[in-house]
Amino acid sequence: MIRLTRRYRFSASHRLHSNSFSDDENQRLFGKCNNPFGHGHNYVLDVSVTGAVDERTGRLVSTGALDRLVRGEVMARFDHADFNRDVPEFSEAIPTSENILQSIEQRLRWAWHKEFPEGGPALAGLRLQETKKNIFELRS
Amino acid sequence: MIRLTRRYRFSASHRLHSNSFSDDENQRLFGKCNNPFGHGHNYVLDVSVTGAVDERTGRLVSTGALDRLVRGEVMARFDHADFNRDVPEFSEAIPTSENILQSIEQRLRWAWHKEFPEGGPALAGLRLQETKKNIFELRS
Amino acid sequence: MIRLTRRYRFSASHRLHSNSFSDDENQRLFGKCNNPFGHGHNYVLDVSVTGAVDERTGRLVSTGALDRLVRGEVMARFDHADFNRDVPEFSEAIPTSENILQSIEQRLRWAWHKEFPEGGPALAGLRLQETKKNIFELRS
Amino acid sequence: MIRLTRRYRFSASHRLHSNSFSDDENQRLFGKCNNPFGHGHNYVLDVSVTGAVDERTGRLVSTGALDRLVRGEVMARFDHADFNRDVPEFSEAIPTSENILQSIEQRLRWAWHKEFPEGGPALAGLRLQETKKNIFELRS
Amino acid sequence: MIRLTRRYRFSASHRLHSNSFSDDENQRLFGKCNNPFGHGHNYVLDVSVTGAVDERTGRLVSTGALDRLVRGEVMARFDHADFNRDVPEFSEAIPTSENILQSIEQRLRWAWHKEFPEGGPALAGLRLQETKKNIFELRS
Amino acid sequence: MIRLTRRYRFSASHRLHSNSFSDDENQRLFGKCNNPFGHGHNYVLDVSVTGAVDERTGRLVSTGALDRLVRGEVMARFDHADFNRDVPEFSEAIPTSENILQSIEQRLRWAWHKEFPEGGPALAGLRLQETKKNIFELRS
Repeated sequence: MIRLTRRYRFSASHRLHSNSFSDDENQRLFGKCNNPFGHGHNYVLDVSVTGAVDERTGRLVSTGALDRLVRGEVMARFDHADFNRDVPEFSEAIPTSENILQSIEQRLRWAWHKEFPEGGPALAGLRLQETKKNIFELRS
Repeated sequence: MIRLTRRYRFSASHRLHSNSFSDDENQRLFGKCNNPFGHGHNYVLDVSVTGAVDERTGRLVSTGALDRLVRGEVMARFDHADFNRDVPEFSEAIPTSENILQSIEQRLRWAWHKEFPEGGPALAGLRLQETKKNIFELRS
Repeated sequence: MIRLTRRYRFSASHRLHSNSFSDDENQRLFGKCNNPFGHGHNYVLDVSVTGAVDERTGRLVSTGALDRLVRGEVMARFDHADFNRDVPEFSEAIPTSENILQSIEQRLRWAWHKEFPEGGPALAGLRLQETKKNIFELRS
Repeated sequence: MIRLTRRYRFSASHRLHSNSFSDDENQRLFGKCNNPFGHGHNYVLDVSVTGAVDERTGRLVSTGALDRLVRGEVMARFDHADFNRDVPEFSEAIPTSENILQSIEQRLRWAWHKEFPEGGPALAGLRLQETKKNIFELRS
Repeated sequence: MIRLTRRYRFSASHRLHSNSFSDDENQRLFGKCNNPFGHGHNYVLDVSVTGAVDERTGRLVSTGALDRLVRGEVMARFDHADFNRDVPEFSEAIPTSENILQSIEQRLRWAWHKEFPEGGPALAGLRLQETKKNIFELRS
Repeated sequence: MIRLTRRYRFSASHRLHSNSFSDDENQRLFGKCNNPFGHGHNYVLDVSVTGAVDERTGRLVSTGALDRLVRGEVMARFDHADFNRDVPEFSEAIPTSENILQSIEQRLRWAWHKEFPEGGPALAGLRLQETKKNIFELRS
């Protein structure tokens, strides 16, 4: 099995804060990430796909189809956005990288069939880099 | 003359918007960067210092003193902040990288004497990386 | 089990094209990569080896032996080459990164015994970076 | 004066060879870069622009205009091309990075007025990275 | 399961040498790394943690707790140190990256309970980069 | 004028300490870098050369000649060495990056004529990266 990992980048802002905690708890749990007006990052998203290599084309997956999927489902909604106020699932949930990664997985899984047939290339993993020091991964 | 460039990183959010333009003009000038709730970046700031090497210590500058200056004047105010709402000079001015860089220069020049004597190490240049594709530089 | 990943770099050119497709199909499938005179890349190859650490030397594998193997079987044939015209297996097969990776694996597996004994360090994975945005992996 | 450096990437192939040298001389001068079928690189092009910051917009230059210029004059002709056979000036001249850089400068200078007015943002420098080890620069 | 990888950096020196080998054997086995006075590296350590995401905080692990652990057990002892003379386990063992990685694992496993409860976030893997060309990994 | 910057890497160890200071002064001036047994770095050295492009070859400089010079005068003496004990000029002088850079410049200037004729390619600058955060430059 071969695995392709393709890189996407988006810039967004967020604030880590939950209404179910007191201000002190929010501050203790999230530190500077709880600052009232938020801050932002250049996120790096790596999408991994596995599957069989098509013998006729020598390719695992159409990168054009993968780009349409990731751009339509993720980039168009997250790039240059504020997670807390622009992305519906984060009006309540806290936009930590862990939650953002799970949201990306749900969005891609839900729309996967738009570009790829049953038994075709499969989503194999996601990696989200918030800063150079913090990388989050979800493996399927 | 030797030149030391020391790297600092901060994460912040901003929105490019001016009240002196119509909504259409703002949109045309700033595109996605004008989105109403803002977005953010992992900024990389390079501070360059020149001067003579102290013969006794073999050093151009005390990096401890430089860190105190940059952390106190820049990082403490910009890291994990929203430029438009947390940083006074951007309540009016547009927080483009060009303007942010000029603000950093003013802050450092104004406080330089706190750490460095007349005739000692001098601020020689500033570089601000907004994303890997866009780098802004100010040379003294 | 410890795993060592060692990095090699080579520059090569290729054209994605198959005689079994019409010109239109080639163009639709491979886009700019089908341009008649080809183009090229700085490929980055990561070779991963696993095994037990030799208690006397504290080492998993002789990097000298690994370098001889990778340089002799891969670098000497691929570096500064044109895949379509210089590398026998690509006179027919399409030199996609997927196929290049499988060719590298076959070359290394076939020659592995020249440097490493049965039961010794084993080839555990290969990763080929065509550009910073596209990484292909084969795991053993 | 502020300086913006914006990064572009293209993949291309080339062969270093001159008909005015014997085969032995070509081989001695260019080594592996003289291999008959060529090889390729992921080139990184940094375009630097200087000028005054527009007080109303806080910007030095419209990055949209700069992108149109660089994409139209350079990327559309060099990306996924073979320098020796696809780019007119290299049917005779040798496509070394030195010559490629001079060709890029001529192309951008010649078309600069299409996007930027007299007295507006000026081309201040070009940098071409052939591999991570070799960087060529032209300063204006 | 989500996985967080957090990056730490330290600078240290070492000499690869074993008293159980002759000088010739040491030289043949370790080459330049056997030079009598040692040499050094900027090591990059990636610590990976897995576990369940806390539904209330949206976090996998407190990065503050992880930092305290890694800084106390590893950084405070290895950063700006000489492995052979400053770190007890390498007064005898050879400070190869393989052995350094195993020492880091033991130190972190032994102290893990100081910060994390039974059933909480678990150490999932370690990666040590000695140079850009050599990366060592231990997976749990 | 075109400028080529070529990158070299070496690993070495050093201790910042001067016998002309008391132990307390050494500790205060150099902090962790004064630790008794030293530590080390992966140094990155960038050598910049300027000159005219040879019209016949399209090249600014023979990279083979430059490599011979830098490898012979710098790499052969600094790579896998301990500055304080293996490099003569640092038996007394403190091996700060500032002093190392000046030593590299003297070594290259002194031997430059071995490879390059009067009026030929000239040494235009040196840059030494001690860590990703600290870069030292000397311009000619």
